[in-house]
Amino acid sequence: MAAPVSQTSAAVERSLRQRIPPLLTDLYQFTMAYAYWRAGRHNEPAVFELFFRSNPFGGGFSLFSGLHDCQLFLRSFHFTDEDVEYLRSVLPPGSDPAFFSYLRKLDCSGVTVQSVPEGTVVFARAPLMEVSGPLAVVQLLETSLLCLVNYASLVCSNAARFRLAAGSRRKLVEMGLRRAQGPDGGLTASRYTYMGGFDLTSNVLAGYLFGIPVAGTMAHSFVTSFSCLEEVWPQSLAPANEDNDGDDSDPVDLISLSKGWLGRVCELLGADPGVAREGELAAFLSYAIAFPRNFLPVIDSYSVASSGLVNFCAVALSLCGLQYQPLGVRLDSGDLCRQSLEVRRAFRACGDQFSVPAFHSLIIVGTNNITEHSIQELNKKENEIDAVGVGTHLVTCTQQPSLGCVYKLVEVRGSPRMKVSEDPEKSTMPGKKAVYRLLDIQGHPFLDLLCLCEEPPPQAGVALRCHPLVGAQDIVTVTASRVARLREEVFSQGQISHPLRNAAEVRESVQNSLKTLHARHKRLKDPDTYTVAASEKLHAVLKAVKRCGHNQNSSSKILLEN
Amino acid sequence: MAAPVSQTSAAVERSLRQRIPPLLTDLYQFTMAYAYWRAGRHNEPAVFELFFRSNPFGGGFSLFSGLHDCQLFLRSFHFTDEDVEYLRSVLPPGSDPAFFSYLRKLDCSGVTVQSVPEGTVVFARAPLMEVSGPLAVVQLLETSLLCLVNYASLVCSNAARFRLAAGSRRKLVEMGLRRAQGPDGGLTASRYTYMGGFDLTSNVLAGYLFGIPVAGTMAHSFVTSFSCLEEVWPQSLAPANEDNDGDDSDPVDLISLSKGWLGRVCELLGADPGVAREGELAAFLSYAIAFPRNFLPVIDSYSVASSGLVNFCAVALSLCGLQYQPLGVRLDSGDLCRQSLEVRRAFRACGDQFSVPAFHSLIIVGTNNITEHSIQELNKKENEIDAVGVGTHLVTCTQQPSLGCVYKLVEVRGSPRMKVSEDPEKSTMPGKKAVYRLLDIQGHPFLDLLCLCEEPPPQAGVALRCHPLVGAQDIVTVTASRVARLREEVFSQGQISHPLRNAAEVRESVQNSLKTLHARHKRLKDPDTYTVAASEKLHAVLKAVKRCGHNQNSSSKILLEN
Repeated sequence: MAAPVSQTSAAVERSLRQRIPPLLTDLYQFTMAYAYWRAGRHNEPAVFELFFRSNPFGGGFSLFSGLHDCQLFLRSFHFTDEDVEYLRSVLPPGSDPAFFSYLRKLDCSGVTVQSVPEGTVVFARAPLMEVSGPLAVVQLLETSLLCLVNYASLVCSNAARFRLAAGSRRKLVEMGLRRAQGPDGGLTASRYTYMGGFDLTSNVLAGYLFGIPVAGTMAHSFVTSFSCLEEVWPQSLAPANEDNDGDDSDPVDLISLSKGWLGRVCELLGADPGVAREGELAAFLSYAIAFPRNFLPVIDSYSVASSGLVNFCAVALSLCGLQYQPLGVRLDSGDLCRQSLEVRRAFRACGDQFSVPAFHSLIIVGTNNITEHSIQELNKKENEIDAVGVGTHLVTCTQQPSLGCVYKLVEVRGSPRMKVSEDPEKSTMPGKKAVYRLLDIQGHPFLDLLCLCEEPPPQAGVALRCHPLVGAQDIVTVTASRVARLREEVFSQGQISHPLRNAAEVRESVQNSLKTLHARHKRLKDPDTYTVAASEKLHAVLKAVKRCGHNQNSSSKILLEN
Repeated sequence: MAAPVSQTSAAVERSLRQRIPPLLTDLYQFTMAYAYWRAGRHNEPAVFELFFRSNPFGGGFSLFSGLHDCQLFLRSFHFTDEDVEYLRSVLPPGSDPAFFSYLRKLDCSGVTVQSVPEGTVVFARAPLMEVSGPLAVVQLLETSLLCLVNYASLVCSNAARFRLAAGSRRKLVEMGLRRAQGPDGGLTASRYTYMGGFDLTSNVLAGYLFGIPVAGTMAHSFVTSFSCLEEVWPQSLAPANEDNDGDDSDPVDLISLSKGWLGRVCELLGADPGVAREGELAAFLSYAIAFPRNFLPVIDSYSVASSGLVNFCAVALSLCGLQYQPLGVRLDSGDLCRQSLEVRRAFRACGDQFSVPAFHSLIIVGTNNITEHSIQELNKKENEIDAVGVGTHLVTCTQQPSLGCVYKLVEVRGSPRMKVSEDPEKSTMPGKKAVYRLLDIQGHPFLDLLCLCEEPPPQAGVALRCHPLVGAQDIVTVTASRVARLREEVFSQGQISHPLRNAAEVRESVQNSLKTLHARHKRLKDPDTYTVAASEKLHAVLKAVKRCGHNQNSSSKILLEN
């Protein structure tokens, strides 16, 4: 059951404003903003970079997501009187009142964002977004941008891994709403797992807001709510009227029909009709009468082999007799592979025995605590599962529940800035940069190059030396067959300067971007490391800034002029 | 920096309605509701139970949270015209239009909820909430209630474990907003980790909406944004005027003052004043001038020992000279324990050498990828850390990112219902129940007893036999010193029937509830299993329903009459 219905992006933007008001940030953004303002530095031009330090899930790549929300957030960023009054109450009593008037008038009209397009394959340590603008403003944006990118990118990457594990044929259904981090965690998960390669979601609001196809039929509670056939109402169903000639056929008593089929099915499959649960049969009949074209019950409420399967076949054969096409079954417990084989055998036997071709196209859906690993197992073990529903492990990203994106200051008033940490991997890469993706002769990207903005872009066919940011090699020489700029301007002068794309468009980008990636980087386990490197000039600035902390301005200026 | 400011619960309710509209649920709730309605069963009285199957994090208990939001959700539950139109578009085309008129008028006026109070210690398999009402309505509530309880309870339990690990003395600050599952995941985390025992949050909106004390001073970007002392403005600070006699003292040049102190501090500590970063000193000075009463900088932007520490001491000593009390420092990388000892030694040396008593009460905050384990280590290794900030591992619950609450049908029209699964642990416990907590002579709870509603409550001092739901023993005999009813009515006739409590009140309940729990159940690792058991009568119903699936009505009725 699926129907993509796109809503206006206005509804999405409204919902986002409610979800992420500008107070949803860390207090220290405001104390820092105050101190910048007090020192008269709030309008100094500054540049921050957003990146993550290692690829998630032990994999070789990630997908960049959350940009659309960031763009909407930036466009609507402003403080209300109520916000400002609250801030006044939490900053120390002596704070200058003029600061709060300044806050009240703030917006992102001075902010420019360069970003990797949403849905692009990205790698650790390459700066994904560059946010430049007045120091106090771009500082204030930190937590919100991280919050919008971190989980979106993580769960999109997780979904892409499930898709890679499943192969392109099997349908993937996201159903994690109840296990996510509250309501909005669930909504975010539905949206970005669809982008990452899932086909359907159980989440109705995600369908409403983002046009994602929705799916679902019944839970165990529906089955167990029925105890006897007297609860089935109405008890009859009119045959499907395919030719629409207005001449409705008379309704047929579906209970009697199914009881007859149940006997024959049990005989064929060697089951005891006395063991099949009457309540389950009643539930299946009621559902089939309500949705004769969408019959896909869950068949393990009691016992698949002795009850659920034979009850399904009895009702499905009755539907077929009335020219309806039942869809299939869902298995939600036990050994899904083994059961799917039994179920398929039964479908084939019924299809052949009773000459019902529809039984050869029934689908089997599996939904029991599915992990990336169990999906990979599906490719190794014999099974007949056509579609998989994934909840907990998809939305909570159990393998690694956080991406760890950071947002670091790299330049103020044109001079590079750097943090030199006690943990070497927490040090940052100074300076405003251009980022290029180098592709090989087959069109596979093989290196992301960070350069100074002032440098000429690398040329295709020309060898260049650069410094990998991680790994044993200090310097490598590479020649690209093609060079692409990795980022583009997505926000400037208070406006979104790159068109917003809907979930389906981003979903396509993700698959296209993944297709270009070489298999050795795409392997789910122990992939080859993709190289992210600094140009020789950027590397020189890094060394200089590290060495001469006392006056970063002069040291780096000298270098840049060289 | 902290100021609890309580907002009206109206703001919270408004925000909740926006966060969890009734479309934020699984599609199958609507297909089931339709099929119930079509069969004329939508108003049959039904009972669902919400519980989880195993205690999280390998621990012996959990905390129940999310009730407040559930109550508000139930009170505001209704569908708009827009909602209903969308549902019409996703249900199959032939669906009866009268169903959508029925949906449009739905609310929770027929729903009654019995629940464990928010912030209570709870155990696996005890039913936490009982939701009774018209079958279709209580079915529709499933996903939303699970979504509101699951993560709230999980993250509250996680916070309680961090608090147990830290002991009661150390301050705990939650700062996970940027690593949570999107905006609302972050807000939910801030709220429920405070309830679980954290003292402060970095999340400003959580402060605004829930009155949680907020904290924060500066990030590394603030430090690295400064490069020289010329950027400090104003350069002077007036002494603190403690006696408020209106006679303001003249401002003092803080730069000169600090430079002087820097020389003396470096001499005392054996540091090279030429190595201390001028930009860092400028950042500290600017912050101190902006917030002279809230000086708590992060001191590891370059090097703690050779730069951050001496710069801090220089500025803090200058502040002390002007009668201000600096607060302390934050360490955000490297070996926090080792560094805290060095920092404390330096504070003591300065305090003694320069006769500045304020230096003996400076605090040291540690914030670097803190886990439950690393907090436990703090109790074993020598260190001087007074407060800990926790982000990623707290809010994403890395040890187990999902609680796995479920919502199961246990009764329809007065007769018990049960799911008998292929996975035995997925089977459910039939029938509407009363739940009692049995306490021993010391007041420690030792057993939760599930009974049939009709049974008389267990008596203190009277031995009773019951059946543990898990474990090797089929039957045990216990005698309670005191018996308490575990649940209370929290919602009925469309109204909240138990007063809502704010975050601070629930936080107190959590600590009180944890205090009564025996240490053997509270151990973070390998705790003793707390017993949850069925009364003999309930156990008999379970066995009967399992045996006689065909007519659950009659089988259980016979039993209940016995």
